[in-house]
Amino acid sequence: MKIFNHKDVELWEVKDEGGEGVSIRWLISKDDGAQRFFMRIFDVQPGGHTPYHKHPWEHEVFILEGKAEVASEKGKHSAPAGHVVFVLPDEHHQFRNETDKLMRFMCLIPKVE
Amino acid sequence: MKIFNHKDVELWEVKDEGGEGVSIRWLISKDDGAQRFFMRIFDVQPGGHTPYHKHPWEHEVFILEGKAEVASEKGKHSAPAGHVVFVLPDEHHQFRNETDKLMRFMCLIPKVE
Repeated sequence: MKIFNHKDVELWEVKDEGGEGVSIRWLISKDDGAQRFFMRIFDVQPGGHTPYHKHPWEHEVFILEGKAEVASEKGKHSAPAGHVVFVLPDEHHQFRNETDKLMRFMCLIPKVE
Repeated sequence: MKIFNHKDVELWEVKDEGGEGVSIRWLISKDDGAQRFFMRIFDVQPGGHTPYHKHPWEHEVFILEGKAEVASEKGKHSAPAGHVVFVLPDEHHQFRNETDKLMRFMCLIPKVE
Protein backbone atom coordinates (compact mmCIF):
# COMPACT_ATOMS: atom_id res chain seq x y z
CA MET A 1 0.00 0.00 0.00
CA LYS A 2 1.18 3.51 -0.78
CA ILE A 3 -0.31 6.64 0.83
CA PHE A 4 0.92 10.12 -0.04
CA ASN A 5 -0.15 13.69 -0.68
CA HIS A 6 -0.46 14.28 -4.42
CA LYS A 7 1.33 17.62 -3.90
CA ASP A 8 4.47 15.75 -2.86
CA VAL A 9 4.71 14.31 -6.37
CA GLU A 10 6.81 16.24 -8.85
CA LEU A 11 4.94 18.49 -11.27
CA TRP A 12 6.23 18.26 -14.85
CA GLU A 13 5.53 20.62 -17.68
CA VAL A 14 3.83 18.75 -20.53
CA LYS A 15 5.44 19.51 -23.88
CA ASP A 16 2.93 17.84 -26.20
CA GLU A 17 2.64 19.61 -29.51
CA GLY A 18 -0.65 21.51 -29.61
CA GLY A 19 -0.85 21.86 -25.83
CA GLU A 20 0.00 24.91 -23.73
CA GLY A 21 0.24 25.79 -20.05
CA VAL A 22 -0.24 22.18 -18.92
CA SER A 23 1.64 20.34 -16.16
CA ILE A 24 1.25 16.77 -14.94
CA ARG A 25 1.75 14.73 -11.78
CA TRP A 26 1.99 10.96 -12.29
CA LEU A 27 0.35 9.64 -9.12
CA ILE A 28 0.03 5.90 -9.75
CA SER A 29 2.11 4.36 -12.53
CA LYS A 30 4.02 1.23 -13.50
CA ASP A 31 6.75 2.34 -11.09
CA ASP A 32 4.31 1.84 -8.21
CA GLY A 33 3.43 -1.64 -9.39
CA ALA A 34 0.20 -0.69 -11.17
CA GLN A 35 -0.47 -3.28 -13.85
CA ARG A 36 -3.70 -2.21 -15.50
CA PHE A 37 -4.45 1.54 -15.27
CA PHE A 38 -2.69 4.72 -14.17
CA MET A 39 -3.67 7.88 -12.27
CA ARG A 40 -2.45 11.37 -13.16
CA ILE A 41 -3.47 14.94 -12.25
CA PHE A 42 -3.13 17.78 -14.75
CA ASP A 43 -2.83 21.48 -13.86
CA VAL A 44 -3.96 23.79 -16.65
CA GLN A 45 -3.09 27.48 -16.37
CA PRO A 46 -5.56 30.22 -17.35
CA GLY A 47 -5.67 30.25 -21.16
CA GLY A 48 -3.98 26.85 -21.34
CA HIS A 49 -5.17 23.69 -23.04
CA THR A 50 -4.27 20.11 -23.84
CA PRO A 51 -3.83 19.15 -27.52
CA TYR A 52 -6.95 18.51 -29.58
CA HIS A 53 -6.24 14.91 -30.48
CA LYS A 54 -7.37 11.30 -30.35
CA HIS A 55 -5.80 7.94 -29.57
CA PRO A 56 -6.93 4.33 -29.25
CA TRP A 57 -7.38 4.38 -25.47
CA GLU A 58 -10.04 5.85 -23.21
CA HIS A 59 -9.80 8.58 -20.54
CA GLU A 60 -11.67 8.55 -17.24
CA VAL A 61 -11.61 12.14 -16.01
CA PHE A 62 -12.80 14.00 -12.92
CA ILE A 63 -12.60 17.80 -12.72
CA LEU A 64 -11.09 18.67 -9.34
CA GLU A 65 -10.84 22.45 -9.42
CA GLY A 66 -11.88 25.36 -11.64
CA LYS A 67 -13.81 24.84 -14.85
CA ALA A 68 -12.89 22.93 -18.00
CA GLU A 69 -14.22 23.47 -21.49
CA VAL A 70 -14.17 20.07 -23.13
CA ALA A 71 -13.94 20.10 -26.93
CA SER A 72 -14.89 17.12 -29.08
CA GLU A 73 -16.27 16.51 -32.56
CA LYS A 74 -19.68 17.36 -31.10
CA GLY A 75 -18.62 20.86 -30.00
CA LYS A 76 -17.63 22.31 -26.65
CA HIS A 77 -19.13 21.58 -23.24
CA SER A 78 -18.52 23.13 -19.84
CA ALA A 79 -17.34 20.84 -17.08
CA PRO A 80 -16.89 22.62 -13.74
CA ALA A 81 -15.39 20.98 -10.65
CA GLY A 82 -17.26 17.81 -9.71
CA HIS A 83 -17.95 16.84 -13.32
CA VAL A 84 -17.00 13.50 -14.82
CA VAL A 85 -15.80 13.15 -18.41
CA PHE A 86 -15.56 9.75 -20.09
CA VAL A 87 -13.67 9.89 -23.37
CA LEU A 88 -14.05 6.74 -25.47
CA PRO A 89 -11.15 5.25 -27.45
CA ASP A 90 -10.55 7.14 -30.72
CA GLU A 91 -12.69 10.13 -29.75
CA HIS A 92 -11.20 13.56 -30.39
CA HIS A 93 -10.89 15.57 -27.18
CA GLN A 94 -9.31 18.64 -25.65
CA PHE A 95 -9.43 20.18 -22.17
CA ARG A 96 -9.32 23.98 -22.15
CA ASN A 97 -9.10 26.50 -19.32
CA GLU A 98 -10.89 29.62 -20.50
CA THR A 99 -11.11 31.12 -17.00
CA ASP A 100 -8.64 33.27 -15.07
CA LYS A 101 -8.07 30.61 -12.39
CA LEU A 102 -6.19 27.32 -12.31
CA MET A 103 -8.08 24.29 -13.65
CA ARG A 104 -7.13 20.84 -12.39
CA PHE A 105 -8.35 17.46 -13.45
CA MET A 106 -7.65 13.84 -12.68
CA CYS A 107 -7.21 11.66 -15.76
CA LEU A 108 -6.85 7.88 -15.70
CA ILE A 109 -5.64 5.80 -18.62
CA PRO A 110 -5.35 2.07 -19.18
CA LYS A 111 -2.02 0.37 -19.64
CA VAL A 112 -1.45 0.36 -23.37
CA GLU A 113 0.81 -2.39 -24.73
CA MET B 1 -18.06 11.15 -24.80
CA LYS B 2 -20.08 11.56 -21.64
CA ILE B 3 -19.98 14.68 -19.44
CA PHE B 4 -22.04 14.98 -16.28
CA ASN B 5 -22.03 16.23 -12.70
CA HIS B 6 -21.23 13.35 -10.35
CA LYS B 7 -24.02 14.61 -8.08
CA ASP B 8 -26.57 13.75 -10.78
CA VAL B 9 -25.68 10.08 -10.38
CA GLU B 10 -27.77 8.08 -7.94
CA LEU B 11 -26.26 7.51 -4.49
CA TRP B 12 -26.71 3.93 -3.24
CA GLU B 13 -26.25 2.68 0.27
CA VAL B 14 -23.55 0.00 0.35
CA LYS B 15 -24.65 -3.05 2.29
CA ASP B 16 -21.37 -4.97 2.44
CA GLU B 17 -21.01 -6.99 5.60
CA GLY B 18 -18.52 -5.28 7.89
CA GLY B 19 -19.17 -1.84 6.43
CA GLU B 20 -21.30 0.95 7.89
CA GLY B 21 -22.47 4.40 6.84
CA VAL B 22 -21.13 4.04 3.30
CA SER B 23 -22.82 5.09 0.05
CA ILE B 24 -21.59 4.80 -3.53
CA ARG B 25 -22.03 6.51 -6.87
CA TRP B 26 -20.98 4.45 -9.90
CA LEU B 27 -19.65 7.14 -12.24
CA ILE B 28 -18.07 5.18 -15.10
CA SER B 29 -19.01 1.53 -15.49
CA LYS B 30 -19.65 -1.18 -18.08
CA ASP B 31 -22.97 0.50 -18.78
CA ASP B 32 -21.09 3.52 -20.13
CA GLY B 33 -18.97 1.37 -22.39
CA ALA B 34 -15.92 1.22 -20.11
CA GLN B 35 -13.99 -1.94 -20.93
CA ARG B 36 -11.01 -1.91 -18.62
CA PHE B 37 -11.51 0.04 -15.38
CA PHE B 38 -14.33 1.75 -13.50
CA MET B 39 -14.75 4.97 -11.50
CA ARG B 40 -16.79 5.27 -8.31
CA ILE B 41 -17.14 7.81 -5.48
CA PHE B 42 -17.85 6.73 -1.92
CA ASP B 43 -19.44 8.90 0.78
CA VAL B 44 -18.58 7.80 4.30
CA GLN B 45 -20.59 9.28 7.17
CA PRO B 46 -18.95 10.30 10.47
CA GLY B 47 -18.15 7.09 12.34
CA GLY B 48 -18.64 5.03 9.17
CA HIS B 49 -16.21 2.66 7.50
CA THR B 50 -15.81 0.22 4.63
CA PRO B 51 -15.21 -3.47 5.47
CA TYR B 52 -11.72 -4.53 6.50
CA HIS B 53 -11.11 -7.00 3.69
CA LYS B 54 -8.96 -8.02 0.75
CA HIS B 55 -9.54 -9.21 -2.81
CA PRO B 56 -7.41 -10.07 -5.83
CA TRP B 57 -7.72 -6.64 -7.51
CA GLU B 58 -6.11 -3.29 -6.83
CA HIS B 59 -7.70 0.05 -5.81
CA GLU B 60 -6.57 3.45 -7.05
CA VAL B 61 -7.97 5.96 -4.56
CA PHE B 62 -8.02 9.74 -4.21
CA ILE B 63 -9.42 11.40 -1.08
CA LEU B 64 -11.73 14.19 -2.23
CA GLU B 65 -13.13 15.59 1.01
CA GLY B 66 -12.64 15.18 4.75
CA LYS B 67 -10.06 12.82 6.20
CA ALA B 68 -9.75 9.04 5.89
CA GLU B 69 -8.00 6.69 8.27
CA VAL B 70 -6.69 3.87 6.13
CA ALA B 71 -6.19 0.56 7.91
CA SER B 72 -3.98 -2.22 6.55
CA GLU B 73 -1.84 -5.02 7.95
CA LYS B 74 0.77 -2.36 8.62
CA GLY B 75 -1.49 -0.31 10.91
CA LYS B 76 -3.51 2.84 10.37
CA HIS B 77 -2.52 5.93 8.41
CA SER B 78 -4.23 9.30 8.01
CA ALA B 79 -5.12 10.37 4.49
CA PRO B 80 -6.73 13.82 4.35
CA ALA B 81 -8.20 15.34 1.19
CA GLY B 82 -5.66 15.42 -1.62
CA HIS B 83 -4.02 12.15 -0.61
CA VAL B 84 -3.59 9.20 -2.95
CA VAL B 85 -3.93 5.60 -1.76
CA PHE B 86 -2.77 2.71 -3.92
CA VAL B 87 -3.96 -0.65 -2.60
CA LEU B 88 -2.24 -3.63 -4.23
CA PRO B 89 -4.10 -6.83 -5.12
CA ASP B 90 -4.63 -9.04 -2.05
CA GLU B 91 -3.75 -6.33 0.47
CA HIS B 92 -6.07 -5.95 3.43
CA HIS B 93 -7.58 -2.45 3.56
CA GLN B 94 -10.30 -0.38 5.19
CA PHE B 95 -11.32 3.27 4.86
CA ARG B 96 -12.62 4.81 8.11
CA ASN B 97 -14.14 8.20 8.87
CA GLU B 98 -13.21 9.02 12.45
CA THR B 99 -14.13 12.71 12.11
CA ASP B 100 -17.48 14.47 12.56
CA LYS B 101 -17.67 15.51 8.89
CA LEU B 102 -18.41 13.65 5.69
CA MET B 103 -15.47 11.87 4.08
CA ARG B 104 -15.52 11.24 0.33
CA PHE B 105 -13.13 9.33 -1.83
CA MET B 106 -12.80 8.29 -5.43
CA CYS B 107 -11.96 4.61 -5.93
CA LEU B 108 -11.14 3.01 -9.26
CA ILE B 109 -11.07 -0.71 -9.88
CA PRO B 110 -10.09 -2.82 -12.88
CA LYS B 111 -12.58 -4.94 -14.75
CA VAL B 112 -12.41 -8.32 -13.09
CA GLU B 113 -13.43 -11.30 -15.20
